Amino acid sequence: MTAHMTPDDFRRHGKALIDWIADYYEQIETYPVLSQAAPGSIRAALPEGPPQEGEPFAAMLADVERAILPGITHWQSPNFFAYFPANASFPAILGELLSAGLGVQGMLWQTSPACTELETLVLDWLVGMLGLPEAFLSTGTGGGVIQDTASSAVLAALLAARERATGYSNVESGNDPRLRAYCSTQTHSSASKAAGVMGLGRANLRAIAVDATYAMRPEALRAAVEADLAAGLRPFFVCATVGTTSSTAIDPVRAIGDIAREFGLWLHVDAAMAGTAALCPEFRGLQDGLELADSYAFNPHKWMFTNFDCDCMWVADRAALIRALTILPDYLKNTATASGAVIDYRDWHVQLGRRFRALKLWFVIRHYGVVGLQALVREHVRLAQQFAAWVAADPRFELAAPVPLNLVCFRLREGGDDANRALLERLNASGKLYLTHTVLGGQYTLRLSIGGTLTEERHVQAAWAMIREP
Amino acid sequence: MTAHMTPDDFRRHGKALIDWIADYYEQIETYPVLSQAAPGSIRAALPEGPPQEGEPFAAMLADVERAILPGITHWQSPNFFAYFPANASFPAILGELLSAGLGVQGMLWQTSPACTELETLVLDWLVGMLGLPEAFLSTGTGGGVIQDTASSAVLAALLAARERATGYSNVESGNDPRLRAYCSTQTHSSASKAAGVMGLGRANLRAIAVDATYAMRPEALRAAVEADLAAGLRPFFVCATVGTTSSTAIDPVRAIGDIAREFGLWLHVDAAMAGTAALCPEFRGLQDGLELADSYAFNPHKWMFTNFDCDCMWVADRAALIRALTILPDYLKNTATASGAVIDYRDWHVQLGRRFRALKLWFVIRHYGVVGLQALVREHVRLAQQFAAWVAADPRFELAAPVPLNLVCFRLREGGDDANRALLERLNASGKLYLTHTVLGGQYTLRLSIGGTLTEERHVQAAWAMIREP
Repeated sequence: MTAHMTPDDFRRHGKALIDWIADYYEQIETYPVLSQAAPGSIRAALPEGPPQEGEPFAAMLADVERAILPGITHWQSPNFFAYFPANASFPAILGELLSAGLGVQGMLWQTSPACTELETLVLDWLVGMLGLPEAFLSTGTGGGVIQDTASSAVLAALLAARERATGYSNVESGNDPRLRAYCSTQTHSSASKAAGVMGLGRANLRAIAVDATYAMRPEALRAAVEADLAAGLRPFFVCATVGTTSSTAIDPVRAIGDIAREFGLWLHVDAAMAGTAALCPEFRGLQDGLELADSYAFNPHKWMFTNFDCDCMWVADRAALIRALTILPDYLKNTATASGAVIDYRDWHVQLGRRFRALKLWFVIRHYGVVGLQALVREHVRLAQQFAAWVAADPRFELAAPVPLNLVCFRLREGGDDANRALLERLNASGKLYLTHTVLGGQYTLRLSIGGTLTEERHVQAAWAMIREP
Repeated sequence: MTAHMTPDDFRRHGKALIDWIADYYEQIETYPVLSQAAPGSIRAALPEGPPQEGEPFAAMLADVERAILPGITHWQSPNFFAYFPANASFPAILGELLSAGLGVQGMLWQTSPACTELETLVLDWLVGMLGLPEAFLSTGTGGGVIQDTASSAVLAALLAARERATGYSNVESGNDPRLRAYCSTQTHSSASKAAGVMGLGRANLRAIAVDATYAMRPEALRAAVEADLAAGLRPFFVCATVGTTSSTAIDPVRAIGDIAREFGLWLHVDAAMAGTAALCPEFRGLQDGLELADSYAFNPHKWMFTNFDCDCMWVADRAALIRALTILPDYLKNTATASGAVIDYRDWHVQLGRRFRALKLWFVIRHYGVVGLQALVREHVRLAQQFAAWVAADPRFELAAPVPLNLVCFRLREGGDDANRALLERLNASGKLYLTHTVLGGQYTLRLSIGGTLTEERHVQAAWAMIREP
């Protein structure tokens, strides 16, 4: 007697769950955006031990409603303005469902050729869709791969850069202690985390000063590289950001790229959130100079309606990345790999196994079409610009940084950090919207990030009304 | 005019996809297990560029049937005996669907308390379910976390070990070149890959000799550690494996653990596949000595009916892991984190963002119950032991390694590597089943791995009949 769920039961429970999810989205605005759960309360609502005998699916779904939902911070709420978005969509959810249903593991081309070939194809599509350099196409020397997150992308870039800089010796023999890398004071913490992970050491990733717009100062980069060279050190890597996490500052990619070329540094460009804007030609100027990049990453799981996780990374020279990460034990050898005619994506990231994530990305692009995606991005940018104009026109508030795209950093002029912190806490405790903060120029600053799939003008208007409340 | 899929359309398409998946499982035995696609053929069946306008969902589903399915290697087929299993189940698929539907990102406790608390709870459940040491419980000094794969778990273990060994200085200042780590010649390639990634260098992870059962020889480990110490080097880490990938060899955890304690090495135990067997008390002897481990990992996504990816990792001292990986920029600060009363799982792995993977694991445990899971594991082991007996009784074949659990390594006695390779290629080209190979004692060896959710006695019987065909 099998304990497995039968296909007929799966049809029944699956359809009930589809309806549950549709219901969830229809009533998502009724939940507090930021979970109001106290630490430990979710666990306390659940049994301390596992069941000995199996339970009916209805019991699980009831517990989801009763015990899990109060512990959800509703990332898909149209009133979620925190961090950066992680905007999902129905087509992407269906892609995830299909991926789970097929249950394939695409570590090698052979272990599901479609998992590899669809990913390569869709990432080639995106090169055109985003106006990326042709060197990133898989049909040349480069190619794209889906990483889980931008954290893994910057780590992979650092690894490829390290190997290229050391004649592909570090992977075998360990770090050259003279290696030095560069980012800005505003670069995402994942670069520093990766520098620690890879054994470079966080202190050996130099944080270059920024200008008044929080963009990296190229002349400060040059000075740091020259000083390190003069000290007998080995500069090998620089990370430029198009749209920093704190304030969507735009590093000058071309100027940084010129310095990278001059000194032989690997240039990685992190456009995790802002990269989606390049769907629209009018925003591509923000990443001018990208043809100087050795690697590039953006997250469709942030602003392109594709469920987390989905980071797209490209390299101009895939051989450098693969040499840093390939390893081939006997039990993974196969004729397709030996032929050299296929991509084995296990050589493009730290993990061996991988899910069929290209399906959701393919579903999103096909459902919306290029034109549909462009329209949604333009609307989010329009809403943010409008909000920024409201802030600028209100004497009680000030903008804390330029607003190139869809993130508005602002603060109360009076009352300092305490007043701004109190404002944020009042907003989030209301449950009606969720914002987070950053620190810019040493001052506590509120961030309103617009990119939710369901966010419309009325939600931004309501947010502004809440913010202005005395 | 929005381009989004409406909730009603999602209900319709979602239910059609649920039916499609149920149909897929009902007819899964009709597909060739190993995809017979030629390199490039999947891509060639799809448009070279993205659509400008959106397309109907039915068009995508039709393309899945027409273009994607021929490129699928059917991991969920009951005739998939390759590698290790990555066995999915209907409850896990529903868990993935719910996770995608909620669309939360659990980097911090605050960004969805349920995502963190359910994960901690279920991993505490598993400590009891698997007979793991109490030190791994989150209620003490330890705790569990879901990593994507065992590759990431061994990397995280290496990082924590490195920091502990160096007084938490490496993450800042870079690698101490005297550090040395140890595994066996049979340890999974992910350990070597991780050693390269973290800057230790693959050459500084010593591969210790194994005995006739392919288990690490503790006296050889001791000799290597002592020789390195005598040379002024710093041994800091050893990886023991319970169930190697090549042949499910069982390293002697207690003996290795005693040496680790004596010399202050961090002991990581990798039981990626075999760990599931510990659901049954009669198999727990295989990991005797686990209370000496600093960290441990097994993959419910291999043999515990939980969709890939889901690796469960525990540490006895969570502080060491967190100190190696934590980083707290302003934009991630929040009151819950500052209170110290919650877990922020972003500090437990390389990535920042994370999916709500505990849902599928919770669904699996609740659907099957402990007793149901035990019964399925016992049946897989019984089938493998029966197959091994058939091999042993046939004079044309020989067993190539002990069969402690559910993997049988075997070969033709006559004809050498060529005959065995030809046998494997004949089997896989048939489309009726899929096996892979390894090399043991320098000889090409076939592997029959039993752990598919749908695999029954009749499938193993049919496999043996195919293998014995002249």
